[in-house]
Amino acid sequence: MSSTTAGQVIRCKAAVAWEAGKPLVIEEVEVAPPQAMEVRLKILFTSLCHTDVYFWEAKGQTPLFPRIFGHEAGGIVESVGEGVTDLKPGDHVLPVFTGECKECRHCKSEESNMCDLLRINTDRGVMLNDGKSRFSINGQPIYHFVGTSTFSEYTVLHVGSVAKINPAAPLDKVCVLSCGISTGLGATLNVAKPKKGSTVAVFGLGAVGLAAAEGARIAGASRIIGVDLNAKRFDEAIKFGVTEFVNPKDHDKPVHEVLAEMTNGGVDRSIECTGSINAMISAFECVHDGWGVAVLVGVPNKDDAFKTHPMNLLNERTIKGTFFGNYKPRSDLPSVVEKYMNKELELEKFITHEVSFSEINKAFEYMLRGEGLRCIIRMDA
Amino acid sequence: MSSTTAGQVIRCKAAVAWEAGKPLVIEEVEVAPPQAMEVRLKILFTSLCHTDVYFWEAKGQTPLFPRIFGHEAGGIVESVGEGVTDLKPGDHVLPVFTGECKECRHCKSEESNMCDLLRINTDRGVMLNDGKSRFSINGQPIYHFVGTSTFSEYTVLHVGSVAKINPAAPLDKVCVLSCGISTGLGATLNVAKPKKGSTVAVFGLGAVGLAAAEGARIAGASRIIGVDLNAKRFDEAIKFGVTEFVNPKDHDKPVHEVLAEMTNGGVDRSIECTGSINAMISAFECVHDGWGVAVLVGVPNKDDAFKTHPMNLLNERTIKGTFFGNYKPRSDLPSVVEKYMNKELELEKFITHEVSFSEINKAFEYMLRGEGLRCIIRMDA
Ligand SMILES: NC(=O)c1ccc[n+]([C@@H]2O[C@H](COP(=O)([O-])OP(=O)(O)OC[C@H]3O[C@@H](n4cnc5c(N)ncnc54)[C@H](O)[C@@H]3O)[C@@H](O)[C@H]2O)c1
Ligand SMILES: NC(=O)c1ccc[n+]([C@@H]2O[C@H](COP(=O)([O-])OP(=O)(O)OC[C@H]3O[C@@H](n4cnc5c(N)ncnc54)[C@H](O)[C@@H]3O)[C@@H](O)[C@H]2O)c1
Ligand SMILES: [Zn+2]
Ligand SMILES: [Zn+2]
Ligand SMILES: [Zn+2]
Ligand SMILES: [Zn+2]
Repeated sequence: MSSTTAGQVIRCKAAVAWEAGKPLVIEEVEVAPPQAMEVRLKILFTSLCHTDVYFWEAKGQTPLFPRIFGHEAGGIVESVGEGVTDLKPGDHVLPVFTGECKECRHCKSEESNMCDLLRINTDRGVMLNDGKSRFSINGQPIYHFVGTSTFSEYTVLHVGSVAKINPAAPLDKVCVLSCGISTGLGATLNVAKPKKGSTVAVFGLGAVGLAAAEGARIAGASRIIGVDLNAKRFDEAIKFGVTEFVNPKDHDKPVHEVLAEMTNGGVDRSIECTGSINAMISAFECVHDGWGVAVLVGVPNKDDAFKTHPMNLLNERTIKGTFFGNYKPRSDLPSVVEKYMNKELELEKFITHEVSFSEINKAFEYMLRGEGLRCIIRMDA
Repeated sequence: MSSTTAGQVIRCKAAVAWEAGKPLVIEEVEVAPPQAMEVRLKILFTSLCHTDVYFWEAKGQTPLFPRIFGHEAGGIVESVGEGVTDLKPGDHVLPVFTGECKECRHCKSEESNMCDLLRINTDRGVMLNDGKSRFSINGQPIYHFVGTSTFSEYTVLHVGSVAKINPAAPLDKVCVLSCGISTGLGATLNVAKPKKGSTVAVFGLGAVGLAAAEGARIAGASRIIGVDLNAKRFDEAIKFGVTEFVNPKDHDKPVHEVLAEMTNGGVDRSIECTGSINAMISAFECVHDGWGVAVLVGVPNKDDAFKTHPMNLLNERTIKGTFFGNYKPRSDLPSVVEKYMNKELELEKFITHEVSFSEINKAFEYMLRGEGLRCIIRMDA
């Protein structure tokens, strides 16, 4: 493949969002070859995440259209640009919305994954190298999305946003590790780090929260308490090792007090995966004094304020936030794929729907209706 | 000594606070023998901490008088009550305002020092065993303070509030490890844990903050930035390895921005030792995203609210509070004393004044005037 298309413009199908909130349209687009430190991928499978829907609706932010969304995916390197030595055509990869340049202070820090060069940027619709798009239709540029734009048969990424993985891994499963599932899983395994036998509360039982629960199961937590305002989420959550459920709506007292009563003073760890500021505060206040750790994952609104009495902190509670589960995409994702390969991590249960590329708008409908967790979009169908 | 006084009431001198805010009066008091799980100590040196002054002023809380204050001290075991096996007459000890029962969930946890049984209780003026005081004057009970009441030649404590230390350690120096100095030191060494070469900000350069700075020096921090509203504090702070000073009053912009500019994005660790809610928030917001950790030490006001935008957390910052520097008093203080003995930790520079017991009110005056750091009160003089 690479021998015939490398260095050439590729014409292929992409799902283009022409306007905010309007169904995507499958169009024939031109995908330019990768420039210096870029790679061009053939996407085989992609899935849909709330962030795509959020920026497609463009209610909160400056709209940037026409645009190609998509950031959870699995693919194969088609060709590489100048200076790329870490990847070669044929490599199996996961594109990631936040990159790892391996050169900046964050990439050199053991603790951070918030690369200065390739940190998520939702406002930029162009490539870093030349400030231009690699997508066009009849000469009209189509904007990129978070450096990935996986709703296209071919797409161009900065090499730092591409994780090379085990070629034996089934891309139609591990593609979900590109974003939400790794985020929740890493929030538990890398940040909350519950000890074996401990009690973990998970706020929000969407895909991210269920991945956090999956992390708690893997870590050997003895109690995993799921908290959600939507009782429908509880049915699915059983499969993820959640042992108890709390719907704040069922109680008169604040949910952190309900949890404290259930656990003799508080949970050992809590992971907030809702985006709701109330849940963030409750998730903090429900951890046990002396050792409790709360981890925030959800993306808050612009005007939210996290507010608590400082004595809650002084009583030896910890709160930390995480971004992409603290995974460094290139360094760490291969080992998450291995967790799936050796059956430690179960991904199948996250995949509730599958559609062909031509039906991509159905995936949006499932998500808007709150149906299921992840819908795999097959690019070849 | 123990052979003649054990089991007997001891008559000795104590500094009694008869009324809120009024000078202490040296009185002859009767000190009852220790009951089950109690020990009676001969205090040789004590020092004064803000907490004594705060409860003596009794502006915020229910007043409890007459009372014997004092909680930073060094002494020798005079006699032990029934069931005490860990201590014997003649042992050198530090009394501690917060105990370690070694039996509860907190004591059994590796992380917490907030003992359920012996956690600081400022409202209780009596012993746990029988709900009564061991101090009296002509039959009138005199209340205890935080289970220590060291402003007395003899005092009775629960065995869990007594740390046995190296008898070779000079009690007139290591007595300051009973409270504030260990609090600041442990906040850095046990909780903030700065790496060698890192940048540490310390908010508040009182004894606690300077002990936090001393911890940063011991940990090998390359920059230690002292922040205080009172520029007078800077002179003393030089001795503690503080390398730079920031007075928020000298700047138009918020102090967390000043620190971010000085440090290319934020400090690696910050330790708040002021009790001011504004400083707590600034101490959090001045740490670097990706890896920064803020530690709160200061005791806030009842109505304070810690408030920040949750994005500050999501960008991988951590905030935690600590109580007594996370030291378990009986298990950990002996090793802090050893740090002094092997010259890793310098205590002399904290000791700025010395008075005889009869002049104890002078120690209160120094503190009220904000003069110096620690005033040692010699019980034998
Ligand atoms: N930090 C990251 O790197 C990262 C990556 C992906 C997603 N996220 C964020 O994680 C969050 C969860 O994502 P998702 O895809 O699972 O979302 P989702 O909408 O599928 O699930 C969120 C769940 O939270 C529940 N919820 C809302 N408010 C609640 C409250 N106050 N108390 C209890 N439950 C409440 C909802 O009912 C829902 O079931 C979102 O905020 C998303 O933006 C963060
Ligand atoms: N958590 C514990 O176990 C523990 C134990 C002992 C003391 N403490 C607390 O630690 C704190 C410090 O104790 P200390 O004895 O050193 O007090 P201190 O009064 O000697 O020092 C506090 C310093 O903070 C400065 N300050 C006040 N507001 C400030 C602000 N907004 N910005 C910058 N600097 C500010 C003051 O000018 C002062 O120099 C107190 O709140 C005390 O109650 C806690
Ligand atoms: Zn980087
Ligand atoms: Zn996503
Ligand atoms: Zn205990
Ligand atoms: Zn004190």
